Amino acid sequence: MSHTAELIAVGTELLLGNIANTNAQALSQSLSALGINVFWHTVVGDNPERLKEALGIARKRADILITTGGLGPTYDDLTKQTICAAFGKPLVLHPDILEDIRDFYESALHVPMPENNTQQAELPEGCVVFDNPVGTAPGCAFEAEGVHVLMLPGPPHEMETMLRRHVEPYLRRLSHEVIVSYDIMTFGMGESSIDQLLHDKMAHMTNPTLATYAKPCEVRLRATAKAATEDEARAMLAPVWEMVRETLGDIVYSGDGGDLADCCHGQLIRRGMTLATAESCTGGLVARRLTAIPGISGVYRGGVVSYWTSVKADVLHVPQDILDTYGPVSEQCARAMAEGVRRLTGADLGVSVTGVAGPDPDERGVPVGIAYIGLAAPEGTFCRPLDFGWRRRDRIQGLAANHAFDVVRRYLQGLPVERI
Amino acid sequence: MSHTAELIAVGTELLLGNIANTNAQALSQSLSALGINVFWHTVVGDNPERLKEALGIARKRADILITTGGLGPTYDDLTKQTICAAFGKPLVLHPDILEDIRDFYESALHVPMPENNTQQAELPEGCVVFDNPVGTAPGCAFEAEGVHVLMLPGPPHEMETMLRRHVEPYLRRLSHEVIVSYDIMTFGMGESSIDQLLHDKMAHMTNPTLATYAKPCEVRLRATAKAATEDEARAMLAPVWEMVRETLGDIVYSGDGGDLADCCHGQLIRRGMTLATAESCTGGLVARRLTAIPGISGVYRGGVVSYWTSVKADVLHVPQDILDTYGPVSEQCARAMAEGVRRLTGADLGVSVTGVAGPDPDERGVPVGIAYIGLAAPEGTFCRPLDFGWRRRDRIQGLAANHAFDVVRRYLQGLPVERI
Repeated sequence: MSHTAELIAVGTELLLGNIANTNAQALSQSLSALGINVFWHTVVGDNPERLKEALGIARKRADILITTGGLGPTYDDLTKQTICAAFGKPLVLHPDILEDIRDFYESALHVPMPENNTQQAELPEGCVVFDNPVGTAPGCAFEAEGVHVLMLPGPPHEMETMLRRHVEPYLRRLSHEVIVSYDIMTFGMGESSIDQLLHDKMAHMTNPTLATYAKPCEVRLRATAKAATEDEARAMLAPVWEMVRETLGDIVYSGDGGDLADCCHGQLIRRGMTLATAESCTGGLVARRLTAIPGISGVYRGGVVSYWTSVKADVLHVPQDILDTYGPVSEQCARAMAEGVRRLTGADLGVSVTGVAGPDPDERGVPVGIAYIGLAAPEGTFCRPLDFGWRRRDRIQGLAANHAFDVVRRYLQGLPVERI
Repeated sequence: MSHTAELIAVGTELLLGNIANTNAQALSQSLSALGINVFWHTVVGDNPERLKEALGIARKRADILITTGGLGPTYDDLTKQTICAAFGKPLVLHPDILEDIRDFYESALHVPMPENNTQQAELPEGCVVFDNPVGTAPGCAFEAEGVHVLMLPGPPHEMETMLRRHVEPYLRRLSHEVIVSYDIMTFGMGESSIDQLLHDKMAHMTNPTLATYAKPCEVRLRATAKAATEDEARAMLAPVWEMVRETLGDIVYSGDGGDLADCCHGQLIRRGMTLATAESCTGGLVARRLTAIPGISGVYRGGVVSYWTSVKADVLHVPQDILDTYGPVSEQCARAMAEGVRRLTGADLGVSVTGVAGPDPDERGVPVGIAYIGLAAPEGTFCRPLDFGWRRRDRIQGLAANHAFDVVRRYLQGLPVERI
């Protein structure tokens, strides 16, 4: 039997737009991988009446209800009370959980527990308790009237830790069909163009399926197969991968769902090479995306954010005549920045980004959207010139960073780097 | 009359968890500022039956329905067709919009328009058209059976541009009450502790109201007042600000909702000083958060990501005996990094971060969660030692970056920096 889950996020901060519902995203990814359908996400405020209404609607169309939020220590956290009332369950104080919460405050955070955290130790009678090693609100699950109800905390890192440790194992026991999906990552072609190339093949697929998801200048293709066993599902997916690779060529950079930074990490390890970064318009974004990856220190040495032109000259040693003649946003400067950071850090590869992210043109009148990626390698220096046209600052920064990663990954895969 | 809006996001990619519903966040912020209630967010897939069901439920409890997504050029984009069927409106081709879309491809993106974009120029008869200067799918609005229906594109930068240009003006004409809210930003105390300090005062407030929203080691307090005029609402909020400042002291760093990086930007301008960064465990995150701010180049010179110890020595000139005796994660190294980057870039202030973000302790056995923030200033060098305990890598990086900003803003505001 196939299960259907509905996600209900509780929190006025979501309805006011203070935060995005990233918990729904993380849960949906897990549920999809477990073969559990998700047809609805709902968000309600810290309002017992509307939460009750949401529960009433959801329990008619799903057999797994998962709530996030409203388990905190403050007076507007009312999820447990409302759910217990709706399903006729009393709330019971768990003294051992109270001790865990007190202990978390004292030994991990090194402060005493505020007394209003006590209510976090009250849980529905007879529930399965999900302990929370990175926060104070435990989660829980119970089954009543044919519905599994799971309550998880709202702070995303607490929810995600609980998801991996408790929720996925709990749900895995309910599911019988295996769904396998993987993400084929592409860079350098828009969603419309990819859709046009693949449309005829995609439209007729029912199992396995292939769907496109666009991010800025990056399109992810998700291939999904349902089968009785994981091996069977994997066998169904192999020809999909072949078809996509054949149709789209070398814009496909990975089949494991990792992004361009992850791809560079893997390729650097494979080739036994180290990398350094020199960034102007991306201002540390390339470095930051690399250093978000655990274990990157094996291949990433460091970099320079040469935001001011003087830093390009004084730290990266870009020759003054290049800065005077061609300006800081030029092919020549991109090449010199890449060579400079390679020399400075001793890395095998130096990648650089210089450009105009806006909102205004640079002081020499170079328009918004112009950028250059430099790559200094043992066999010479390369440059990819770019023109993004007018776009928002953060988009230009994101696109330029992606192109920097694409230049590195193409170099490491032995492909031409100066044009896609 | 007070209006109530319901947000319906359409897209299987949301239900699969490929993306978060950030559109609901951006829309909710705008609606809240306009005094329009938002009690529900709903997400459905690219499925006409379930979208119809969502519309049926939503039109009973709201008089403004706003959809995002499903306006794209691909075969599963069905929002317009489904909404037109539900509200009895025919779809009509707009030749001028088709020209705009063709023009966007040719002049902004420098490629020809794929033919499947034609369907994006079909809109409900008699609707108000919202043009899309940063993408191809126009949005639209119509009123039918006492409900305003607005359809907006899914890609967040397109949706947000349309929101500012068209949706906010459209909705402003419907609203009569003025809601003013502002965000009081704090750093250095948890939500529970702040809630305990403010609870008695917050619980009795109905207009204005004060609510807490926690982010990692940063708590935002939103003060909101409803009144007939903006001046009246602002006057109601002044005593709330005074009360919060008095209760929480100098952990309050701003009343304008900007984050710690914005606060540093403003304080650097006010003091006429420039900043440089030297980052180890945050790997460019401090630089990246600064360079996300338009206009930061006036005060931010650049920085070094000294991920490898050799880069600390070779680029930042941290003395070898400090690295040998105390190690790269030490108060001494943090001070030398800050002094090094200040000297290298000629900035007035150098801020540094060194620490262990994990998942493993460093090679000298310094445990995960230990970090040091250094600040080199004209009158000397300061250091804030930190112990975050065991947390996830991205949390430690985020917290350490926030502490670096907090050290800078406290220095600039004349407060002690070495302890909070």
